[in-house]
Amino acid sequence: MVRHNGQMELPNFSDVVTASERLSGVAVRTPMLRSRALDAHTGSRVFLKPEMLQVSGSFKFRGAYNRICQLSKREHADGVVAWSSGNHAQGVAAAAAMFDIPATIVMPADAPAIKRDNTLALGAQIITYDRFTESREAIAQDVAKQSGAVIVPSYDDVNIIAGQGTVGLELLQDVAANGESLDALLICCGGGGLSAGCALVASEISRTTDVFTVEPKGFDDYAKSLASGERQRIEMPVVSICDALLTPEPGKLTFAINQHRIKQGLVVSDAEVVAAVRFAFRVLKLVVEPGGAVALAALLSGKLPRHYERVGIILSGGNVDPAAFSQLLERA
Amino acid sequence: MVRHNGQMELPNFSDVVTASERLSGVAVRTPMLRSRALDAHTGSRVFLKPEMLQVSGSFKFRGAYNRICQLSKREHADGVVAWSSGNHAQGVAAAAAMFDIPATIVMPADAPAIKRDNTLALGAQIITYDRFTESREAIAQDVAKQSGAVIVPSYDDVNIIAGQGTVGLELLQDVAANGESLDALLICCGGGGLSAGCALVASEISRTTDVFTVEPKGFDDYAKSLASGERQRIEMPVVSICDALLTPEPGKLTFAINQHRIKQGLVVSDAEVVAAVRFAFRVLKLVVEPGGAVALAALLSGKLPRHYERVGIILSGGNVDPAAFSQLLERA
Repeated sequence: MVRHNGQMELPNFSDVVTASERLSGVAVRTPMLRSRALDAHTGSRVFLKPEMLQVSGSFKFRGAYNRICQLSKREHADGVVAWSSGNHAQGVAAAAAMFDIPATIVMPADAPAIKRDNTLALGAQIITYDRFTESREAIAQDVAKQSGAVIVPSYDDVNIIAGQGTVGLELLQDVAANGESLDALLICCGGGGLSAGCALVASEISRTTDVFTVEPKGFDDYAKSLASGERQRIEMPVVSICDALLTPEPGKLTFAINQHRIKQGLVVSDAEVVAAVRFAFRVLKLVVEPGGAVALAALLSGKLPRHYERVGIILSGGNVDPAAFSQLLERA
Repeated sequence: MVRHNGQMELPNFSDVVTASERLSGVAVRTPMLRSRALDAHTGSRVFLKPEMLQVSGSFKFRGAYNRICQLSKREHADGVVAWSSGNHAQGVAAAAAMFDIPATIVMPADAPAIKRDNTLALGAQIITYDRFTESREAIAQDVAKQSGAVIVPSYDDVNIIAGQGTVGLELLQDVAANGESLDALLICCGGGGLSAGCALVASEISRTTDVFTVEPKGFDDYAKSLASGERQRIEMPVVSICDALLTPEPGKLTFAINQHRIKQGLVVSDAEVVAAVRFAFRVLKLVVEPGGAVALAALLSGKLPRHYERVGIILSGGNVDPAAFSQLLERA
């Protein structure tokens, strides 16, 4: 960890390496996948990191485990509390279950049923709230105050960022083992934990890789913030199918890391995301949730400048309700 | 290759190794996948081989390429012809396209649209026939006679079997690299090409592994043949959602290989297959077509005796129409 402007503690590359060691044998080392059909379709060489194959169905387990495994024995009894649209919830619940720690999750009332059900199945308790009128942070802080539970933030935390960075570390290692390197790396972006972790890694071990965040239209706080050079808060009540990526502003820590490491923030429409989910089904044979498909959507819809030849794409999660998925497949 | 009973030429282990060398850098070396949730659900340690991630969306590309890459330059011009319910079709079309060889496929009129469309997109010509009244073999032989095209059989062929055997070779290698071995290996079975290739490999490099074929109910010609010790032909007009596995009798070569190498033929119902497809969607985040899910269905439904701890499962393909998949997801 390093101090930033004498104030914030930011993770550094060695924190990601340490996280990687902690996750070894616990998380899935998801494979790097290649698809001739995708290459032919895009005219690029695409390297996929399929994090829907991760424990809990998204990359979020990595950061959550990296934080929770460091709790003291004394902290175990009072448990952990987190707020989440559903993927961080499952990641926290899965990691807490491994240590037999009670977990409470503050989750929006309109979260996908699969995310709620999986979180409950992993033994966590859920408190629901209204995304439009209530503050999830305030509810979680109340729980923490009353129970003594430790808050596990969903992105703005040194250990969470370092854990998510292992996604980028593994992908860049596998690409290098293949004798190649990435010209561009596209990463879905909500609060910026995954992108910050991966950008940190790329700036250390793959300096010629341009890293891009990708957000759903209407939730492009990161793109706006990167363009203006300071954190921008957006008005939230816009609808998007990307339930995992609906954040109003970049994290403080994640933005401090991303600000000078991300080339540009890309933005995709819901229609482009639907097309990407369908492509992943039809060609890649992978189940990708809408929020997990935005990086692929950016590539397929031509948002990435054409001169990038070797492109890394993180498919960040696959927790989507069967009925919602059916609807996506049939929206032609 | 070895002579069998002084008559048939059968592939041997070294033919699989040779096929593996030919496929290196051409086929996808599909990863071995593990899932904590699947292990917890079954009480086993399960090792998955996800062949829907293969070129053309199923393992069939392996055998087709292994045959087609051996055609002489002189044979290229007249092309190849094959009959197939759709996965071998795509495998042949993909391999033929790589060598710029014309391909004609005889395919049932009721094959899934995705299989037909992908085959056409790969540049092959399709001749449709009625599964219940016409002989696909006769049609293909006519094409071969008139055009001079080489027939690429879908399973009963030394090179096809050797190519499909690379699935088992890779899985057993990856399991061994993980410091483990398989107690059981479950393989979907139509004509028996995949099972024969994999059984050949297991009997050579993993003798303690019991190999099982898995078929859909009503199409259990292999189970019956293995039980009786000779090839049994079944009555066909039974319905199954497993369009990839609707064969009336074992191949001659495949049965000669499998007869003394397969422990038992397992059988699963369509309802068990639907449950497996849904499980693969919900938990594994993989798109598996019904015929590709029978091995998983056998495990999930308890058809495999419980004393097998470390179980290999081949998920053989993922070519399923969006509308059909939606229906499977919603059949709860």
